Amino acid sequence: MRLRIDLSYDGTDFRGWAIQPDLRTVQGTLETALATVLRLPAVSVVCAGRTDTGVHARGQVVHLDLHGTTSYDHRLMRRLNGILPADVRVLAVATAADGFDARFSALWRRYAYRVADDPSLADPLTRHHVLAGTHPLDLEAMNRAGEALLGLQDFAAFCKRRAGATTVRTLLDLAWSRDERGVAVCHVRADAFCHRMVRSLVGCLMAVGEGRREPEWVASILTARLRDPSLKVAPARGLTLEQVCYPDADELAVHAGRTRTKREAL
Amino acid sequence: MRLRIDLSYDGTDFRGWAIQPDLRTVQGTLETALATVLRLPAVSVVCAGRTDTGVHARGQVVHLDLHGTTSYDHRLMRRLNGILPADVRVLAVATAADGFDARFSALWRRYAYRVADDPSLADPLTRHHVLAGTHPLDLEAMNRAGEALLGLQDFAAFCKRRAGATTVRTLLDLAWSRDERGVAVCHVRADAFCHRMVRSLVGCLMAVGEGRREPEWVASILTARLRDPSLKVAPARGLTLEQVCYPDADELAVHAGRTRTKREAL
Repeated sequence: MRLRIDLSYDGTDFRGWAIQPDLRTVQGTLETALATVLRLPAVSVVCAGRTDTGVHARGQVVHLDLHGTTSYDHRLMRRLNGILPADVRVLAVATAADGFDARFSALWRRYAYRVADDPSLADPLTRHHVLAGTHPLDLEAMNRAGEALLGLQDFAAFCKRRAGATTVRTLLDLAWSRDERGVAVCHVRADAFCHRMVRSLVGCLMAVGEGRREPEWVASILTARLRDPSLKVAPARGLTLEQVCYPDADELAVHAGRTRTKREAL
Repeated sequence: MRLRIDLSYDGTDFRGWAIQPDLRTVQGTLETALATVLRLPAVSVVCAGRTDTGVHARGQVVHLDLHGTTSYDHRLMRRLNGILPADVRVLAVATAADGFDARFSALWRRYAYRVADDPSLADPLTRHHVLAGTHPLDLEAMNRAGEALLGLQDFAAFCKRRAGATTVRTLLDLAWSRDERGVAVCHVRADAFCHRMVRSLVGCLMAVGEGRREPEWVASILTARLRDPSLKVAPARGLTLEQVCYPDADELAVHAGRTRTKREAL
């Protein structure tokens, strides 16, 4: 049987998601807690979005395969939260629907990047997940520039390249707005993101928002399909994985067929 | 001349506002930074609301008297923020209007108390200023009970008594609602609060919200004017001083006359 676990974490004190020997990672912390609670020598989870060092999550999703057919419910969640450190919280535990895969079933991922771009917006209570900006941002210019990035594109210019992996993604949404306090927030949604892609997109757009570059520069970077050395990747602190969306249970089986093809391509 | 300084802080790692020898307090930290930047042997500030250990502020206001007539502006703010630790931020520095007193000119103070009353609302990114509740809260019952507290009342039952000090206050607003994520928030506004008053009111209402007490119990506590040993003071973590309101500059002189009388009464 397969379990689906939804969780949130403050990435500040983690060396990212992926397990690494002798380093405090979210995956390592979660797997240790699961092994303890389930009384297993070791467990291995698969997640929807492997976040980098310092990146946060409010809607991370993982799956975990277990032998047997024991049913797990909110008691498992309570026991996990009882032993997990305060910077990781399990939000839900459920038996996964047939065909569910935390990574390959995901229809899209949504990230938010937050910048307090004026000293009067400084808020020590959110300092770990809101970047303290140095210049006021022109959101309109950033949104204008961002339009060129939407749709099915090769994001090679915004990705840390990995041998053999495609950098083609579908960017579904990218919009800057201000929250009720005035903090600038970029909501960005895609079928999937390659490594460092959100922070590269945000870094590129912030150069426009701060007036250092023209909006047209963003499109020229995209079409060049090469990393521009002047493109600064935005700091991890401001980035949060907010949501991962999956098909309904009755569509998963159909979707599983399609994602098998996708899995082979990635 | 008198300066007005607006600031925010994460109270987690402070032993409250008021300066104490050998303890890390917000007042001590701010006064040290001010003395350094202004090149003075020592300075002394007066604040609008002396917060307890672990209580936060997004809208604390202080005043500071200085000799001379040098004008201070955003450069002083930048220099202060340059040396203050990350858990305190100065939001604004300005020459105070005639008659301004951070404590005695205040028309009202507004605090917010936040409770994530369901495990699915757990958010490690806000864990330092949102209480993790143990039971779902019935906000309607809490609001009904809270109505009895509004207006000019003797809040002796909700105050840590201090010899000779009045416990009469005017409670202007008290309302529970849910923010966009579903977190329960109590906004409470009064001309002034006595020591531990907000946390006592919240603790009392939470007993109603969790179904441990009837709404009428709150009114009976108030009218008894005695601390009820079963009344649990809510934890500091969930409490934030959000805003302090002052009269406009042209009304301050008139107001100063009235507050002189008030100062003598307190």
